[in-house]
Amino acid sequence: MAIKVHGAPVSTCTARVLACLLEKGVEYEFIPIDFAAGTHKQQSFLSLNPFGLVPVLEDGDLILFESRAITRYVADKHKDEGPDLLGSSKDPIALAAVDTWMEVEAHQFNGPISGLVYQIVVNPFLGMDPDEEQIRTHLEKLEKVLDVYEERLQETKYLAGDFYSLADLHHIPYLLYLMRTPMSSLIISRPHVKAWWEKVSSRPASLQVSPGLNLS
Amino acid sequence: MAIKVHGAPVSTCTARVLACLLEKGVEYEFIPIDFAAGTHKQQSFLSLNPFGLVPVLEDGDLILFESRAITRYVADKHKDEGPDLLGSSKDPIALAAVDTWMEVEAHQFNGPISGLVYQIVVNPFLGMDPDEEQIRTHLEKLEKVLDVYEERLQETKYLAGDFYSLADLHHIPYLLYLMRTPMSSLIISRPHVKAWWEKVSSRPASLQVSPGLNLS
Repeated sequence: MAIKVHGAPVSTCTARVLACLLEKGVEYEFIPIDFAAGTHKQQSFLSLNPFGLVPVLEDGDLILFESRAITRYVADKHKDEGPDLLGSSKDPIALAAVDTWMEVEAHQFNGPISGLVYQIVVNPFLGMDPDEEQIRTHLEKLEKVLDVYEERLQETKYLAGDFYSLADLHHIPYLLYLMRTPMSSLIISRPHVKAWWEKVSSRPASLQVSPGLNLS
Repeated sequence: MAIKVHGAPVSTCTARVLACLLEKGVEYEFIPIDFAAGTHKQQSFLSLNPFGLVPVLEDGDLILFESRAITRYVADKHKDEGPDLLGSSKDPIALAAVDTWMEVEAHQFNGPISGLVYQIVVNPFLGMDPDEEQIRTHLEKLEKVLDVYEERLQETKYLAGDFYSLADLHHIPYLLYLMRTPMSSLIISRPHVKAWWEKVSSRPASLQVSPGLNLS
């Protein structure tokens, strides 16, 4: 029985999971959730994820939510298919580096970039003016994070080391949105971050989720 | 060579790591960071964690930051000592459940409870008035999360299943702050959350980090 993914192509958290499944070459059935119809707040969906959020993964009887827990499960279960996205299952030091930079993405990067994309992509799409004060706050934080990345990526090809991992992959969805705006300069102006992004974004799995991450 | 932990006892992220080391019975040397003196922004500390945040763990040549990556490393490295905080290293389904509820803590619970504790504990300590609007916003979100926990804990003794894990442990530091305020009613009014908290907070490791989490 194929894995099922409940989600929406425009959702960054859904795209995170899809990119991981595509890297691994794992077949899946995609079940689109209709936000406009409020499907995610109906009991049938809440029984899968009580928080009413996408994505949800069903693998037989196993039901998982939270995108970063799902990618970890997929990367671990399919560690011998495609690239080993957890460093190397046999090397706890590499795994610890992957975990560290996955946490950096979740706790340092995700907040400011999601806030920024919300202001400069989502708000205009909804016909609302961006909040300039919010933009300034998020921008300042994101610049500091990217400065650390620039330094890090002078030492290693990817965030966790010289290998592609979930630590890189988790960054893809929001960066795909950002890179279609004038704020792409945040990446382009930092040579090592730029080189990293070119490698990461040109992977077949990244190219496949990219068209879905589009509100227009 | 003993593990070194750079941090501060009042820091929730430091306490998360200490609670994990104490559960495992792993000896460590504690190196206090003097925030008032700005030690965390000096080059010697930034060379350990470029984000200038505590805690940092040193295990021989390995340097790790981000509390939830550190606890995962410690729990994995010392899986045979003390309770298996990752479910069971041999059961990927249990591990996926631990990962899911660790992510719930990080992405659903941590935001509102840290915001709330900041307003009702940190602000008064700094002689500032709490922001009532902020309190309302965080409270509303936290109540919804705790409602899901109440339902979940009717089915399982702990968040990830019938076993204590990092998914529970990661909640301890902020809840220790919250439980000393009138907002403890958020926990006490939900019978299954209350029973869970009584089990979790009475563990020797939880009791040991508790006194440090105090601003006064």
